[in-house]
Amino acid sequence: MKLYDLAGAEDDLRFSPNCWRIKMALEHKGLVAETVPWRFVEKDVIAFSGQKAVPVLVDGEKSVSDSWEIAKYLESAYSDRPTLFGGPAGGGFALFVKFWCEQTLNRTILRIILPNLLMRLPEKDKVYFRGSREAALGTTLERQALPGEEGVSLLRAALSPMRATLQRQPYLAGAQPNFADYIVFGSFQWARAVSPVALVETGDPVFEWRERLLDAFGGLARSAHHWGA
Amino acid sequence: MKLYDLAGAEDDLRFSPNCWRIKMALEHKGLVAETVPWRFVEKDVIAFSGQKAVPVLVDGEKSVSDSWEIAKYLESAYSDRPTLFGGPAGGGFALFVKFWCEQTLNRTILRIILPNLLMRLPEKDKVYFRGSREAALGTTLERQALPGEEGVSLLRAALSPMRATLQRQPYLAGAQPNFADYIVFGSFQWARAVSPVALVETGDPVFEWRERLLDAFGGLARSAHHWGA
Repeated sequence: MKLYDLAGAEDDLRFSPNCWRIKMALEHKGLVAETVPWRFVEKDVIAFSGQKAVPVLVDGEKSVSDSWEIAKYLESAYSDRPTLFGGPAGGGFALFVKFWCEQTLNRTILRIILPNLLMRLPEKDKVYFRGSREAALGTTLERQALPGEEGVSLLRAALSPMRATLQRQPYLAGAQPNFADYIVFGSFQWARAVSPVALVETGDPVFEWRERLLDAFGGLARSAHHWGA
Repeated sequence: MKLYDLAGAEDDLRFSPNCWRIKMALEHKGLVAETVPWRFVEKDVIAFSGQKAVPVLVDGEKSVSDSWEIAKYLESAYSDRPTLFGGPAGGGFALFVKFWCEQTLNRTILRIILPNLLMRLPEKDKVYFRGSREAALGTTLERQALPGEEGVSLLRAALSPMRATLQRQPYLAGAQPNFADYIVFGSFQWARAVSPVALVETGDPVFEWRERLLDAFGGLARSAHHWGA
């Protein structure tokens, strides 16, 4: 298997939240994939997939794009391995957690980490990233940035239902993590790769949850190259 | 089985969101309970349970309070019946949906329906409700009320991750509803019992989801006495 994985100026700086979801999912399934560093402007490299963004997973003859589709593919193609969703109802909830994470957390995290994220891109990606994001947002990256305490307070408030859940159980999925946990953890890895801002404080159940996932699978996520907190 | 169920000025006006969770859960399990109308000031009636609020479920010699505890009790005591959680991971997610619903939706729904809710209480409960809520909120009920468009816009924005999920599948739990769906549905029944404000519009996937649950179990929820939309 081969996983195209977004990289920064350095080949081993892997910050994509959606790619982290899949790296954790592969470990969960006990599968091994070679990761290939990829940059935003290298559309031709993944043109075979019909997509313009990563993650793209190549498994033998088959290629699958989009982190949600890849997770569903892994769950059905490797159904004899540990489940990523815990059955049909679990799949439904992982979808809810995905939208909650993307609509509630990721927008705020992006605004917190933006200046540092930009700094860690290779030059060719900086121009692309600024142009595409500013067109989508209708404003400059500098105006989107939400540095310091304001962004962190917003994020900590948004994490409230997750915090309450983690006060009662170690993972969103219960006693053991599953894809819903990896969805949200991917967003924390995105920040950790590039930003010195501490999104959550020691003692916060969300912090303790992140610690457990940093340690999972032999410390895969903890040992990854990072510039951040 | 006997379920103590919050009632309004009329015995058959049952508006408690947490009691609705359990009425739907009992149907899901194919269990029958006699419901007993109960008012806020009738603490002595449920003193045997050690709790001051409903739902309280009496099942033979056993009594269980708190909607989350009752759901867990039903799931384990009637494990041969259809599952409320879809396994351990499903239980984890239902807990997340519970906190999301309570922290994000219920606060806004309460502010929208407050004037009408108060109007539908029996006189003895009006005094209690105002006193206890104003002490907890540190302000008057009138200052908490958020009538008209402002509350509805806030609520519709907060429903966004649920809407996106329901665009892809009929229920939060997937193809079939489970306790996570009943948690959120209870909040809609709370509003429907007392308030003429339409929380969601026709065409919204959340509206269609509510329609399906109003029709579930022979139209139990749809046929319940209501003053609202």
